[in-house]
Amino acid sequence: MCSVPVPQAPLRHVAVTGGTHGNELSGVYLARHWLRDPRELRRPSFSATPVLANPAAAAACRRYVDRDLNRTFTDTLLVSRATPNDPHELTRARELDQLLGPKASGSDRAFDFVLDLHNTTANMGTCLLVDGAHNTFALHLSRHLQLQFPEVPCQVLLTRPPQSASESFSLDSVAKNGMTVELGPQPQGVLRADVFSRMRALVASALDFMELFNQGAAFPAFEMEVYRNLGGEDFPRTQDGDLAGMVHPQLQDRDYEPLQPGAPIFQKFSGEDVLYEGDSTVYPVFINEAAYYEKHVAFLRTEKLMISVPPLPPLSPTPTQVL
Amino acid sequence: MCSVPVPQAPLRHVAVTGGTHGNELSGVYLARHWLRDPRELRRPSFSATPVLANPAAAAACRRYVDRDLNRTFTDTLLVSRATPNDPHELTRARELDQLLGPKASGSDRAFDFVLDLHNTTANMGTCLLVDGAHNTFALHLSRHLQLQFPEVPCQVLLTRPPQSASESFSLDSVAKNGMTVELGPQPQGVLRADVFSRMRALVASALDFMELFNQGAAFPAFEMEVYRNLGGEDFPRTQDGDLAGMVHPQLQDRDYEPLQPGAPIFQKFSGEDVLYEGDSTVYPVFINEAAYYEKHVAFLRTEKLMISVPPLPPLSPTPTQVL
Repeated sequence: MCSVPVPQAPLRHVAVTGGTHGNELSGVYLARHWLRDPRELRRPSFSATPVLANPAAAAACRRYVDRDLNRTFTDTLLVSRATPNDPHELTRARELDQLLGPKASGSDRAFDFVLDLHNTTANMGTCLLVDGAHNTFALHLSRHLQLQFPEVPCQVLLTRPPQSASESFSLDSVAKNGMTVELGPQPQGVLRADVFSRMRALVASALDFMELFNQGAAFPAFEMEVYRNLGGEDFPRTQDGDLAGMVHPQLQDRDYEPLQPGAPIFQKFSGEDVLYEGDSTVYPVFINEAAYYEKHVAFLRTEKLMISVPPLPPLSPTPTQVL
Repeated sequence: MCSVPVPQAPLRHVAVTGGTHGNELSGVYLARHWLRDPRELRRPSFSATPVLANPAAAAACRRYVDRDLNRTFTDTLLVSRATPNDPHELTRARELDQLLGPKASGSDRAFDFVLDLHNTTANMGTCLLVDGAHNTFALHLSRHLQLQFPEVPCQVLLTRPPQSASESFSLDSVAKNGMTVELGPQPQGVLRADVFSRMRALVASALDFMELFNQGAAFPAFEMEVYRNLGGEDFPRTQDGDLAGMVHPQLQDRDYEPLQPGAPIFQKFSGEDVLYEGDSTVYPVFINEAAYYEKHVAFLRTEKLMISVPPLPPLSPTPTQVL
């Protein structure tokens, strides 16, 4: 697994992206607000750039127009030859890659950090999605946010399954580094003031952390509890592929809680319970997320780990220019 | 106001419709289940007909394809001349009118009762939508359901604003009589087992009531608390029509609770509160319903009334045929 290099210079190019999914309204309306009035995104050493990632989907209040934008940032797709019949989101992914990356070339002009804002219908409170345990900077940022927001669950989810060979595909992967924030529960197409305010405060706190880093602060090592994605569990289905049941009431809203083998996970429309057949305890997340029905995911199984995060060294002072 | 005649004969033709809005999944999946296995809908004196009202919208998991089906059942639209460019839902409304009505002619072959199943993202528990206080049969049915389900709020909403001259437009208006059931909160595109089970039990209980009526039961007069629709309240908006704010956290989830003049109803993105400027107490419902953003409705204002519902007389025994 490649380690994401710890930044050796101040973060100057930071983007905050909302509306990557057009019906996740906290990020849509924060991005629109900041595009009108970006003052909240300014810090002494940098100004974050607000981006409405998928304006067409946001205008239609749909997750996407043709395909899921946040699964479209693979090297393969980004460098593929453009054609007039490309799905809307492939064209938009290339535009965002030019704006925030480019990813494929590993170019130095890529943004230093992208913070991508999402909502979920699952009862997940605040969930910080980091690609893996090797991403020291994002884990320090996550730790900072956990300490700032102790009142609601603020968990870290390592998104890449162990031994995953698949390419990264999410918007935050086009920059040098990035992180995705998921806030819930919030229905698609609904803007809740409590969730909106929480997301706004999280972004402010994330920018404060980057400012501290830019000013030369050092951050010591720590131990951290994280959840690591082990893959999805599909709904029970009929022979023609339609749902044959739904998330069991004993599992609904129990994100991050232990699920033991033999516990009920689905209730079929016929009345029968479906039990969890895994051979060890897992910790489901994204339970009953609306957008994952079409992906055949009723929830993600995760394992709970303690990881050791190394210190984040202070930036070396800028060498004095010799005249 | 026209009174809906109390049935003079047993209800033989009853329909239970789901998926009038394709992303309100309790009704979608109940209808699909009953189309495969309708045994639950049988009673000694009748069998209710399950109908998936908008299969194309349900397949796409969207409220509608071209226009809101549940605003399309006006006499004007139903009798308009069909054209090849008609919106999908207008064509479908005409089909449903032929199946369950026809509404326009007042034909005797119309269904006796349509129970139309919906979900809302608002915190409304169980809400029974009856067109007006003149609908004695639907109010007796509502009373029966309230007594059967005391554990969650089960309120009656009279949907027609006072002095409204507008035509009825909802699916349940094509039959001789009907009622709409709204269950929430449930996000669009999500199927919650608790809400699904509640809707299933409500339908069973509604059919039981019709069976009691068909068997000749008499139902005495009663007093009932109801909420009557006074019209919608829009979000604060920017000059270009976009949202300038959201439902205030002090109003969110407080459906049916009194809202006093001067109380905060919206929080602008700029931070400012918007206060309720009405001159009397109202009782908001459908607070922050996802589907109403495009209708410029942040919530419906209602008044709370006590109404007297007259007795529902027993059916006369069928006259013995004279040979």
